[in-house]
Order: sequence, then C-alpha cells, then structure tokens
Amino acid sequence: MKIGTAAIDGRERVVVLLDDPGDLAVLLPATLPGVGELAADWPRWRPRVEEAVERAGAEGVAAEPMDDLTWLPPVPRPGKVVCVALNNSANKDRIMSGPEHPATFPKPTTSLVGHQQPIRIRPEYGRVHPEPELAVVIGRGGRDIAREDALDHVFGYTIINDLTSPTMRAEDTFHYRAIHPDPERPGDATAIRYVDTWVSYPGRYKGADTFGPIGPWIVTRDEVPDPHDLTIQCTHQGRVVTKDSTANLKHKVADVLSFLSSYSTLEPGDIIAMGTALKPSGAGSAVQNVDLATLGGPISVSITGIGELSNPVELG
Amino acid sequence: MKIGTAAIDGRERVVVLLDDPGDLAVLLPATLPGVGELAADWPRWRPRVEEAVERAGAEGVAAEPMDDLTWLPPVPRPGKVVCVALNNSANKDRIMSGPEHPATFPKPTTSLVGHQQPIRIRPEYGRVHPEPELAVVIGRGGRDIAREDALDHVFGYTIINDLTSPTMRAEDTFHYRAIHPDPERPGDATAIRYVDTWVSYPGRYKGADTFGPIGPWIVTRDEVPDPHDLTIQCTHQGRVVTKDSTANLKHKVADVLSFLSSYSTLEPGDIIAMGTALKPSGAGSAVQNVDLATLGGPISVSITGIGELSNPVELG
Repeated sequence: MKIGTAAIDGRERVVVLLDDPGDLAVLLPATLPGVGELAADWPRWRPRVEEAVERAGAEGVAAEPMDDLTWLPPVPRPGKVVCVALNNSANKDRIMSGPEHPATFPKPTTSLVGHQQPIRIRPEYGRVHPEPELAVVIGRGGRDIAREDALDHVFGYTIINDLTSPTMRAEDTFHYRAIHPDPERPGDATAIRYVDTWVSYPGRYKGADTFGPIGPWIVTRDEVPDPHDLTIQCTHQGRVVTKDSTANLKHKVADVLSFLSSYSTLEPGDIIAMGTALKPSGAGSAVQNVDLATLGGPISVSITGIGELSNPVELG
Repeated sequence: MKIGTAAIDGRERVVVLLDDPGDLAVLLPATLPGVGELAADWPRWRPRVEEAVERAGAEGVAAEPMDDLTWLPPVPRPGKVVCVALNNSANKDRIMSGPEHPATFPKPTTSLVGHQQPIRIRPEYGRVHPEPELAVVIGRGGRDIAREDALDHVFGYTIINDLTSPTMRAEDTFHYRAIHPDPERPGDATAIRYVDTWVSYPGRYKGADTFGPIGPWIVTRDEVPDPHDLTIQCTHQGRVVTKDSTANLKHKVADVLSFLSSYSTLEPGDIIAMGTALKPSGAGSAVQNVDLATLGGPISVSITGIGELSNPVELG
C-alpha cells in the first residue's frame, strides 16, 4: 500500500494511493489517526484503512488526482530523522579513515518538506547539492533490536533528498585543540592535554528549512521484498545525474537498525535515511556538481517500486 | 513561575512549583494542555495556570514534595533540541579556525531524560563527560526573528547536561576526500576535484539515549531578567568541577535565536542549549576529566535562579 499525508483545507489528512490508476488518491476519514500512529500498530490498523478505501470506492467518493494534492512529509512530525553518513561502496576509495559501523547525524523535523513543495535557498547558504536516498520508516519501535528481527520493525520505505550545503559545512567546521585527560597522569583530575581535532556541526548545512524533501508517500514493507534491490535515480531539470542501486549501500537496512537501536530507542514514525546513491550516471556527472543555488530546480529522486519525489527550487 | 512535567500513574502531568516552600509542587488538572502547548501561547494560558494553582491551595489539595515526583523532560517531546557548539570565551585560545556565527547540532528527543532519571552508559560508549549548559525554551515560534525581538520568543530557561562521548566522537569522524566541483573547469558538470576533509557525525556521541538530562523545570522568562548574569556550576559526587558565568557565552541568547531563525523555523517548545560552561573551578579541574563511564555519578548542574539538575549514573 502507498500511504501518505496531504494538507486539505489546512488540515493534515492521510491519503492512500489507488493501485489502479496509481495517480489517484483516496482521503481517509479524519476519524483515523495520522500515519505515525498507524505505523505504530499497522497490523491492527491495516484492515480499517483497507475498509475505508473500499467504502470510498463503493460510495463513489471521488479520488483526488495526486498532482492536485498539497503533499506533506508522509509522517508530518517524526520523533527523529536519522541519516547514515558516507554509506555507499562508491565512497570506499575516498575514505582515508572512518568507522566500520554506521555513523549518523540527525536532521530536525523542521527541515522536512513534502513532494512538490519548494526547496528554498538563500544566497548565504552557498552551494547546495542533492543527496538521493532510500528512507526507512519505523513501525514498531524498540531498543536493542537483533539484526534478524530488524525488518519486522519497518513500517515501509520512502524517498528522501538529503540536501547538503558544502559551503556551510566548511564554515561550520572547527579546527581546535580538544581537552583530553593526560594519559601520563591518570590519577590527576586536573591533568589535561590538548589534542588537535576537527569537528563539524551539521545543524545548518544539513538542517536548514526545506533541506529534507521526503515522499511522496510510504510504500509499506510487504510491497518491498528486498530493500537492497532497488534502482535509485536522481534527475535534475530532466537530466539524469545519478543512477545507482541500493545494493551498493555498505551498511544494510537490518544492520543499521540493529546498530542504531543499540544506543538510541527507535520510535514509530522515525525516519532513517540510508545514505547517498553516489555512482555517477552514464552521462558522467556527480550530485555534488548539481549546485541548486545557481542552477535552480526541479530536482527529482525516483526509486523503483516506490515512486518519484520532485521539488522545485526557489532562490533568494 | 517554575513549571515542569512529571509522570503520575504513567501519565504526563504538568506541575508548578510553589514559591514557598519551593520544594512542593502542585499538579495541574489534566484538562490543561502540556508544557509545549502552554509555551506556544503563554500570555493566554498563564492566568488559567495561576488560577489552577490557587484553587488547589484553596481546596487543600496536597502538594507533592518535589523529590517524590518522577520528573520527565519539562517539554517531554520538543520538536527539536538544538545545541550551540564551542560557545564559551574560555575556548577562544583553543580554536585555530571556526565560524564567527553560532555553529549548531541537533540532539534527538529520545536522548532526553528528566531530573533524577538515570544516565545509562554502556561499555562500548568509551569515555562520557558532562557539559553543563543553560537551555532556552521557545515560546512563540518564528522565522527571521530580529535580534531585538528575540527574547520575546523565549518561554523560559532550564538546565541541560549535554553529555558527550569523546571516544565515540573520534570513532565517528571521517577523514576523506570530499567531491567538489573543479574550479578550473567551471562549465563542465563532470569536472570534479577531491578536497581533503574531516567530518564528524554527532548521532551517537551526542545523541545516545539518556545523553540529554534536562530540567528539573522551566523558569519562565519574567523571572530571569538577564540570562547572561547567571552562575552555572557542575558538581560531580559532591565535588565542584566547574563554576562559570553565562556572561562568558560568546554568542548571546538573542544572537543565537536570531541567527538560528535565519535558516530554521523555531517552534514552541524547541530547546536551544547555549553551550558549555568550561571554566575550571577554583579546585582546578575540567568537565572533560569527569569520565562518568569509569567514575559513575551522581552528576549535577545548578544555575542561579533556576535550580539544580541531578542524575545518577548506571553503568553496563
């Protein structure tokens, strides 16, 4: 099932895409809860959602053309959005040192926007490039989830464009002398030494408003038999920039959820962005060369079996 | 007014501390909304909250001793928690390069815990040290807030202990060759060059469960005439580790809110952690030397006029 959220007369409404034709969406009755709550106990809610869709059909309620809807993020206010960094095998020869486990950073929920909503870029942001990614939506939450149980905690999959400003990243990196305990005076609480350290802070370069286009909808897990057999493509102004496969993700969905839940509780509706598809397309390009701040939009990301997320760009 | 959130019979309840004696708390009726909603329109809600406190007194409803309460984060599920990095004038001589504006990172809401709730540290986390900070709680939200209007958007102030693992920070730092456009071939979308880059990802070293003790409560803005005239003290197992003043924060509350809102919408209940009080105490020590993973707790942070946040530590 394809399920998402749209704004109808200023209110959030859950919408379900019809299987045929797939560009028509049924609004669920407002008596049903939001997508985050549905995800928390999908086995219980699914029959009620299916019943509501059938009833709408039987009662001749008009379905909405998907392009007429104002799309919101499929989970409008997730508890957290966690992104896996540098998780593509194409990165391997670029990494001089880094962890063997998935490294992550959060994106604030205020950075999310729905399908077709504008990406807003200000002059002071500098360069802004797209990062096309598969996103996992958590169903049942948990802590210390075993690798073999991890996919049971997935509600479904969606698409995220993890917009990034390398200009702001460079600006928000500190080269400084971190205070560490002095290993030569272990018993002495006043003994410190300075260690040359580079630390970068992602609040701005990853977290600015509209830097997280997501959607258009979630495809529930049962319709995605293998999340690592999906083609992901990024298209800028109609030109293919990147075409890659989720097979190239170094850390797989089950590994990421298991490791993440070893230090952070997963909650229903949480979004986990799996890392960027980086392989340049046959045309020979790189997402980092698509500077939306100078080139404008639209910028689109499609994943086989999920759909296409597309967003215009507003400069200034 | 001191206002916070406690768990009573498994439910979140808003509590108000009595002025005299200050260690007694009144539970507000469950018909009033949570602290985040109260903060969104405090001028409207304040009379109703004050009336509820008075009525409880008149009706002889017993106030609860504060130590008997199970404290939750004062805003249990803020939309975002934004922390300002390296914002103390004591850092000045340690920074070789870095931005002139406030650099920030988000902490996930799942990292927050209330006063007296245990900090849980696992062996694989390595070293974990406290970072005592003043936290701003947003009232009225907004975007592009002028510096001179910024304090009008503050609901109140609380205390946060921005726990940090330097071990996980080192592990989650990549040294890699970032892809940048080639400046010598500006028109060529396929032209890239590699730039030696250090990037660190804070999802784990700042965002693990229980790495965000916060509270015990919020002191509303009217009772904090100058947020930059407060003494902040960190005490470990009864010994003072750091004593500093919020006067030493490089970027002030109004500057931070104004700059932050130039790229990120502020929402009611959002938490802004202002950066660490780093000045070593007279006893001569540093927060970085207080390794909670080996020394255990309790660890406490107090700020004049706000209160004391104290948390035990559970290892393993």
